[in-house]
Amino acid sequence: MTTGGAKKTWQELLTFPLGNRTEKPRTSGLTMLIDKGLGLGEIRDLLNLAGDYIDFVKLGFGTSALYYNDVLEEKIHLVTSRGIDIYPGGTFLEIAILQDKLREYLAMARDFGFTAIEVSDGTIDLSQEQRAEAIVSASEMGFKVLTEVGKKDPRDEFEIKEIVQLVNRDLSYGASHVIVEGRESGKAVGLYDENGNIIMSDLEELVHSLADASTLIWEAPMKEQQQELIIRFGPNVNIGNVNPHEVLALEALRVGLRADTLKTVLPRR
Amino acid sequence: MTTGGAKKTWQELLTFPLGNRTEKPRTSGLTMLIDKGLGLGEIRDLLNLAGDYIDFVKLGFGTSALYYNDVLEEKIHLVTSRGIDIYPGGTFLEIAILQDKLREYLAMARDFGFTAIEVSDGTIDLSQEQRAEAIVSASEMGFKVLTEVGKKDPRDEFEIKEIVQLVNRDLSYGASHVIVEGRESGKAVGLYDENGNIIMSDLEELVHSLADASTLIWEAPMKEQQQELIIRFGPNVNIGNVNPHEVLALEALRVGLRADTLKTVLPRR
Amino acid sequence: MTTGGAKKTWQELLTFPLGNRTEKPRTSGLTMLIDKGLGLGEIRDLLNLAGDYIDFVKLGFGTSALYYNDVLEEKIHLVTSRGIDIYPGGTFLEIAILQDKLREYLAMARDFGFTAIEVSDGTIDLSQEQRAEAIVSASEMGFKVLTEVGKKDPRDEFEIKEIVQLVNRDLSYGASHVIVEGRESGKAVGLYDENGNIIMSDLEELVHSLADASTLIWEAPMKEQQQELIIRFGPNVNIGNVNPHEVLALEALRVGLRADTLKTVLPRR
Repeated sequence: MTTGGAKKTWQELLTFPLGNRTEKPRTSGLTMLIDKGLGLGEIRDLLNLAGDYIDFVKLGFGTSALYYNDVLEEKIHLVTSRGIDIYPGGTFLEIAILQDKLREYLAMARDFGFTAIEVSDGTIDLSQEQRAEAIVSASEMGFKVLTEVGKKDPRDEFEIKEIVQLVNRDLSYGASHVIVEGRESGKAVGLYDENGNIIMSDLEELVHSLADASTLIWEAPMKEQQQELIIRFGPNVNIGNVNPHEVLALEALRVGLRADTLKTVLPRR
Repeated sequence: MTTGGAKKTWQELLTFPLGNRTEKPRTSGLTMLIDKGLGLGEIRDLLNLAGDYIDFVKLGFGTSALYYNDVLEEKIHLVTSRGIDIYPGGTFLEIAILQDKLREYLAMARDFGFTAIEVSDGTIDLSQEQRAEAIVSASEMGFKVLTEVGKKDPRDEFEIKEIVQLVNRDLSYGASHVIVEGRESGKAVGLYDENGNIIMSDLEELVHSLADASTLIWEAPMKEQQQELIIRFGPNVNIGNVNPHEVLALEALRVGLRADTLKTVLPRR
Repeated sequence: MTTGGAKKTWQELLTFPLGNRTEKPRTSGLTMLIDKGLGLGEIRDLLNLAGDYIDFVKLGFGTSALYYNDVLEEKIHLVTSRGIDIYPGGTFLEIAILQDKLREYLAMARDFGFTAIEVSDGTIDLSQEQRAEAIVSASEMGFKVLTEVGKKDPRDEFEIKEIVQLVNRDLSYGASHVIVEGRESGKAVGLYDENGNIIMSDLEELVHSLADASTLIWEAPMKEQQQELIIRFGPNVNIGNVNPHEVLALEALRVGLRADTLKTVLPRR
């Protein structure tokens, strides 16, 4: 069933229409999955199919707390053994901070084998000091630290100037990337209007206010959002909250193997 | 890969924000899955991940009739061996009644190993006598009986007074719970408007007209519906037509490990 | 766990409300799956559950190019060993034509074990000669050839007269079926308005202009679309772009084991 060395591959025959896709380990063009409850068989299956196209797995919300210990440990092991980072959802850390258990939370996450931590305040309010402490603590314990900007509540304003300050501060404290909140739905939150369309003027203002926009990971669960981001930033934009069943479809979008991005590199009709 | 006895768990470290979640075997806080065609590997995977959070599995519509016999028997065995009830969709029983095969239908369901039966008239019309006969027959044969109220057709009225009478009658005949129709989509049916929003005035009227609203199972396939029900009734509301991939996400909603219910127990900002 | 020969089946007890469903190998009543990235375990699971209800598997878009060779070969083997045809998405062939690699593309597809080819110009423009060449070449190499009509871009018109000419030409060149474009979303494309409703006047005009409408495969990813097509054409209409998790639900719709089609054969209330 395995292929002999002489076998040609598609990549030798055809050029991917959008070129220069980064390879693992990547620092840009990251794909972050949201895992709302994949079984061990499903994650194993997915990694065998598409492990090279996944950089981060997030166990969504506080679902980490609902696993049997041995299942959680095995999932983490399966993921990390493929060179993929895995972390509990930001809401879970918010609960730990609420209950004044930050250090114990980080220690337990490390014991389970998580390799990254998300620091967010999507639901609670954190002071600057609390946020800094979480980033620095997680970083010192050896975690890759992702922070998140933007509130989960649609009534909260997404103020670009404040976001820019927050991004810069988070990076200075040791965050490797900053996630732009899109929720699981991608609607009526942050940069997305109630139909899930990107508010492009906000996006452009944000991008132009930052020294390096490639530190951002855009939560973009909807295909149209992914497409718009790829058209705007190219195949190596960082995209998060990707549905596990859409990993291969997203990769096809990134490299132009799907109509929606392929058409952008065709001569005008 | 298994954890030593000394290992701490998340539950020892952190308090779940919405407390007092019931444990299995539950009489309230029930979660009922709709299975539209999970493979044996998928159901096994799901039970290993989240078996404690599932109380009923429904094989949606008449899909039971489309299985290979050995696959159906193995699925039923997998589910029941985890202490979970399983039953064929109500539409299937309606077809049996239409074809005047109620007793044979119940006997065959028992032979296959089903442990529960749904009695509905979402598509056909049943007389009071027919409905009573179905409930009593299934009950006498040892099935747990769930009945359903509400029509599947959006043109049919959802008359609270009639619903209340029906619920009370069904329970008196031996039904253990009554399902409030929400279909697979959760839109334009029963208590849901065409966007899937709960019509709260109808819900309140229904609840206040019943001696014990905890006998109801609310079909609520959409996350916003689940969230509203949990906010209204607490973590131990009975929720049905849950997508298999959403079991863990729903459990997170129930216990406050997700922003949408967590925020309800936070001090006001 | 296997059933003895004496075991009765549901089909012996109950009559399927919509009768005369075709059996495999079918020439009408075809179900074509869109596979956007199923793992090997998932496809194996699905075939064990519902292999008899699947006639074609399409590896959506250009995802074929993103597989590890051994995974792709094993998937193709699993599918074809169940008597199911499998082919790469039409966009992939369009890219091959764009890069002037038609013959090499077909040869590689044959080497991998694909049994069918989709010829489309959903994204690029093909001359009549190019389209004819692709159909004839694939046909001569032993592939079952499906062509597709309709553009993926919502701004393109769906001109019935041109479509009819194209269908007839494609069939004359050797296509076995012609797919009516519906995309993965089923919205704002071809016969579907922006909400995914079928534009019935267009459909009727198309059907009445063809000698044999059963050569068409309707891409209909949404349940409402599948339902409308079954109500219009009966259980043996050809339906494509079916979500893998909906195969059993679609089969239930086809044979009247689901409310939406069951109700059409009931006496009027």
